[in-house]
Amino acid sequence: MKKIRAAIVGYGNIGKYVLEAIEAAPDFEVAGIVRRNATDVPHELKLYPVTDDIKKLNDVDVAVLATPTRSVETYAKEILALGIHTVDSYDIHGGIVDLRRSLDEVAKANNTVAVISAGWDPGSDSVVRALLEAMVPKGITYTNFGPGMSMGHTVAVKAIEGVKDALSMTIPMGTGVHRRMVYIEVKEGYNFEKVAAAIKADDYFVHDETHVMQVTSVDDLKDMGHGVNLVRKGVSGQTQNQLIEFDMKINNPALTAQILIAVARASFRQKPGAYTMIELPMIDMLYGDKEDLIRRLV
Amino acid sequence: MKKIRAAIVGYGNIGKYVLEAIEAAPDFEVAGIVRRNATDVPHELKLYPVTDDIKKLNDVDVAVLATPTRSVETYAKEILALGIHTVDSYDIHGGIVDLRRSLDEVAKANNTVAVISAGWDPGSDSVVRALLEAMVPKGITYTNFGPGMSMGHTVAVKAIEGVKDALSMTIPMGTGVHRRMVYIEVKEGYNFEKVAAAIKADDYFVHDETHVMQVTSVDDLKDMGHGVNLVRKGVSGQTQNQLIEFDMKINNPALTAQILIAVARASFRQKPGAYTMIELPMIDMLYGDKEDLIRRLV
Repeated sequence: MKKIRAAIVGYGNIGKYVLEAIEAAPDFEVAGIVRRNATDVPHELKLYPVTDDIKKLNDVDVAVLATPTRSVETYAKEILALGIHTVDSYDIHGGIVDLRRSLDEVAKANNTVAVISAGWDPGSDSVVRALLEAMVPKGITYTNFGPGMSMGHTVAVKAIEGVKDALSMTIPMGTGVHRRMVYIEVKEGYNFEKVAAAIKADDYFVHDETHVMQVTSVDDLKDMGHGVNLVRKGVSGQTQNQLIEFDMKINNPALTAQILIAVARASFRQKPGAYTMIELPMIDMLYGDKEDLIRRLV
Repeated sequence: MKKIRAAIVGYGNIGKYVLEAIEAAPDFEVAGIVRRNATDVPHELKLYPVTDDIKKLNDVDVAVLATPTRSVETYAKEILALGIHTVDSYDIHGGIVDLRRSLDEVAKANNTVAVISAGWDPGSDSVVRALLEAMVPKGITYTNFGPGMSMGHTVAVKAIEGVKDALSMTIPMGTGVHRRMVYIEVKEGYNFEKVAAAIKADDYFVHDETHVMQVTSVDDLKDMGHGVNLVRKGVSGQTQNQLIEFDMKINNPALTAQILIAVARASFRQKPGAYTMIELPMIDMLYGDKEDLIRRLV
């Protein structure tokens, strides 16, 4: 069987886990790694081509974009134009419909497929939200995140004057309400109380209960564990009080990377265009014979 | 907007809830009810055509098969041959692949669509099992049912000599192990201990911890509530200990009926053929504009 040749574009935290997921998948092989500084080749990449341009790699079937979310659209368009599939974990919820439109056009024009916003939220949580709405069309869904590190909030704290290093943890309080636990190192010459007040007044934090704590080493607190608790209560047909819950405790980048590989597989089973995960049949993400999967999972 | 005209085939417990789900769905209308005795028209059916033959109904787009599981194949083939879509909740796990093959052939020959085994297990649980395997490819999934009434086990008890009426409850003990709590009324002239021993020796019960209790009225114990706890622990990429759980407490026939309507909607968005729920994109089950759904759920 010909394996799917995947290139990893961007080799930060997610990229490293994508490499592990490709190595673990029976139907994939690494086509190479694309990174800005192609001379930076850590031990685990010694076996593979590392380059600064995807065009220098051979026979790439799909590019896994492990770049910052804001660079996804640019990279995806360039790579789709080469006739290579792309998958990404674009996570700005308000921008997903626009990204889908824009990549859909490029993908169709180049007879290829993009799967966008594939991770756990957006991603597998989106699939669960859609499934729960099919089961229980009337009612409220709450997505409770954490406990775990919020990348977006951590970046927001780091941008505040006087912050040397930071970590923002998201703590679920139920019904979609979250507490923010912010741990910071303060730059010399700055007053902790004033920095803390500036954080609490920031747009990212002003609406949530926020606690700011000074620590000597932010790095010592870091852990990639995360979680979600997704709850829906509502009405099936005309019957009230249907209760459904989805819970997980996971390594965040490992799950994101695994899902990227699953949707990369699924991309070869779709018609040209751009898709979110709620537009993919679940079976298309899985390795194995169709009837065997149906026999085992349905 | 033209509504989807659905016929309900079989008007037992599930059929009644299917009627409620159709009435609650903004894009569906009742084409009629097909039942063996078409002169039996309860109050809530007075508004609708009731007949003993689906061919007597006008403009049926889809037939919701709310018949016993063993009659599904026969009814589905007849109705698909009329060019009408079918959906069913066929629930004999070992027979699903064969049913899918058989209906796939008829559906394709008649340019129509069948969605099979759509309920909660098989059904929404199957979707969750497939999703969890995409997220965590290595590991074990346990499906824990209940507490709730098992139709299959209840029927098996009723078949045993000396049983006047029965109810078999499934109690989840974790890791896919279940206790059976069996409540029976004993026929006159039979010895409870002997009947209880026969139940425990039956194929349906011999492998599970089974308790049999004598009651004066089985009917007084009946409740349509059910539940499931689906757990997977395993490996994403090369990262161990990924924990995911799916839990629900629901009215059983109401959820089954609602899911049948969701897949009936999805059937109009598939190419001719037969499908299980893990072969359908989640978004196809939902009412509403595609981009609105993506904006709201992804």
